[in-house]
Order: sequence, then C-alpha cells, then structure tokens
Amino acid sequence: MIRIAVLASGGGTNLQALLDACAAGRVDGRVAVVLSNVPGAGALDRARAAGAAVELLPSRGVADREAYDRAVLERLRPHAPDLVCLAGWMRLLGPAFLAAHGPLPSTRGCPRVMNVHPALLPAFPGLHVQQAALDYGARFSGCTVHFVDAGTDTGPVIVQAVVPVLQDDDARALAARILVQEHRIYPQAVQWFAEGRLSLEGRRVRVAGAAAAEGALVQPAS
Amino acid sequence: MIRIAVLASGGGTNLQALLDACAAGRVDGRVAVVLSNVPGAGALDRARAAGAAVELLPSRGVADREAYDRAVLERLRPHAPDLVCLAGWMRLLGPAFLAAHGPLPSTRGCPRVMNVHPALLPAFPGLHVQQAALDYGARFSGCTVHFVDAGTDTGPVIVQAVVPVLQDDDARALAARILVQEHRIYPQAVQWFAEGRLSLEGRRVRVAGAAAAEGALVQPAS
Repeated sequence: MIRIAVLASGGGTNLQALLDACAAGRVDGRVAVVLSNVPGAGALDRARAAGAAVELLPSRGVADREAYDRAVLERLRPHAPDLVCLAGWMRLLGPAFLAAHGPLPSTRGCPRVMNVHPALLPAFPGLHVQQAALDYGARFSGCTVHFVDAGTDTGPVIVQAVVPVLQDDDARALAARILVQEHRIYPQAVQWFAEGRLSLEGRRVRVAGAAAAEGALVQPAS
Repeated sequence: MIRIAVLASGGGTNLQALLDACAAGRVDGRVAVVLSNVPGAGALDRARAAGAAVELLPSRGVADREAYDRAVLERLRPHAPDLVCLAGWMRLLGPAFLAAHGPLPSTRGCPRVMNVHPALLPAFPGLHVQQAALDYGARFSGCTVHFVDAGTDTGPVIVQAVVPVLQDDDARALAARILVQEHRIYPQAVQWFAEGRLSLEGRRVRVAGAAAAEGALVQPAS
C-alpha cells in the first residue's frame, strides 16, 4: 500500500477519482494527505469527506517560489508520501521540490511526482488547452498522465487516452469528454506505480507485464 | 469530376491510394498529372501504370526556390488541376505556388493544396516524426490531412486518424501502422473536397453534412 499526497487547486474531481479507486481497491494505496493552495477549494471538502488529512497553504501573493515549495515539502513530510499526485494543481514546482521526490532504486528511475494534463501531449501544453485544440481544428484530443519535470507538461508520458473533437464542440463540452478519460487513466497510472511496474528508459516509460498495446495506453472510449 | 495533380518525391503509396480511390469511384475525380522532383521515383511508375500524365522536374542542386516553384506551376498548368495533392513531396512550396492555388469562391475559403503528414499534428511536425514520437514516449500517434500553407505542416486540419504506439515499436513498425491510415483518410479528404463539402472558418475546417463525430474524423482502427 503506497501513501499518496495529492496537490490540488480546484474542485478536485481527479482527486475524487483517486480516492474512489483507493477505496474500491483498484489502487493499492491510500491518499494520506491533500494539500491545496486555494482556500475553499472543493478538493479540501472531498479530502475531509474521505478522511484524508488536509493541509491549506495559500499561495496568493507569495512571490518567493522556493520558499513556498519548501513550505509544501514541510507540510507533506509528516505524511511520508511515496508518490505526489498533482490534480488540478496550478503552480509550477521548483527543482528543490522535484529533487526531494526524485527517482529511488525502488522506483526504477521513475520520479515520484505525477500530473494529469487534459491534452494529448506534446500537443497543447499549458493553459486553456481545450480552446487551443478547438482553435487549431484538431480532430482528436485527450489526456496524458506524466511524470513531472521542471518544464510545463514536458515530463515522461505514463499513459494517454484519446477522445474525438466533435464539430460543434465548445471548450466546455470537450473538457467534459476529456475529464471522463482523466478519471480512468490517472488511477491506472498510480496503480502501475504502486505495483512497481513502471520504469524509465530515456524518457520512455515502460509498463512491465503489459501486452504490446495493453496497459501502456488506454484506447479511446468510443 | 475534379482534376487532381499529385506532387510526389518517393515511392508513391499515397499516390496509389488516390489512384485506386479514383478508379473505384470513391473519389469523384481523376489524377490528371503526377509531378516528381526525383528521377526514378516509384511514384512515376505508378502514374504511368495508371495512365496519368507524368512530369519530371529534378530539384537536386536547384538553389532558386522561386524559379523552381514557377517551373512546377508551368508544368501543371496545361493539366488545369482543381486540386494539388502532396504525397511524400519533400520540398516546401513558396508563396507564389500557394497563391496560384489559393481559395476560390467555389472552394468556400479552402485553399487548393493538400498534404498528408504521418503524425497527429500539431504534435511532431517536420521530418523523422515516427522516431520523434517514439523518443517522446507518445502512446498514440496517427496522421493528418491538412491544407497547405507557408509553414511546415501548419495548415488547417481536414481529417486525422489515430493509431496506438506499441511498447516494442520501432520507427518502421509505427510508420507502417500509420501508413494504412494515411491511405484511408487522404482519399476521404479529397472526396469531401470534390463534393464541395469543405469550408474554412478561421483555421477550422468544417465538413458539411457530417454527423458530429462522423466524417469530420476517422476513428482509430482498433
């Protein structure tokens, strides 16, 4: 059973997917602590409802990113997380935070911070990505669970899922379709980590024991 | 019946898909001429076998791109193409060529040059894209038929298809899987053009008469 820390800035639906997967035994782990930088974030209510520890560390107006990162580390430390999951976490994490959760022998080269992004990276990194996909005229988008590095949505890909972009989509409709897939693939990625099946070769993530097309990716739903 | 000019530098399998689709009546058009910049290109043999006119205009050592583009235009002009299809054409086309095949009232804002690219644009433009997708660790790739603008693989997307990237893929295996989809979607895009169903809004290509998810995209094969 791994101990998971979740960092969330928003409503927390991906946090909820992780909480539900742990409760249902689909993830061999437990959300030990949820930290938010936004007072009143829905994620905090979800954490409390599930009996997870809650840490609030407001970031508004905080200019010293390194000091903030150190404060996050201090709040997480007592909970001894094996894995940190970003779930709608709207701040970049600096090198000190990432170094503190870097690869261990037991993680076979894999860092210990994951994120989910609502696009098929490397397409559409950053913010407002559904509108970007629509404006580009992309026929497909999706979501990506990846290890976190110092860049914005640049880390090694663990799993992706594809959804179609429909002709009459707006950003809200596309976001909702993608979110369904985020809730599928994020617990899947965490479970692979918990099972010790992930390893890193260059920036390619291998999933041990997976069939060629099974496990290493999630096929489109439709 | 539209008249199609195909520009090809290589073996010409996408040309063959267009020739076959025209012969089978899946495209309401005819390949009037095939122009290659590479002596001995397989595309030329395929064109001759199908009874299309053939133009060879070697580009090796040609430094004046504008002059070369003008020469291409002159070779195509007698064949009066309604649409120019790039199929493994390894040269950028300049503004004079693109202006000569710009939008007409009858094409509802759509330019008259198309290309097929072996990746899910905007991911992996340019060359060596299958290796780039593998090195990135992408779980999906695919192909894109798009209108051509002055950039490299930046024009408006007409249709895309997705394929999985398998854990043990090399660039050759991935390229072969993608090529199957290229041969499906390129004739489809040309047929939509021939039927007058395509229009351009900003950089979004609309497909008239298509259901929300039908026509506007090709679902993954598996």
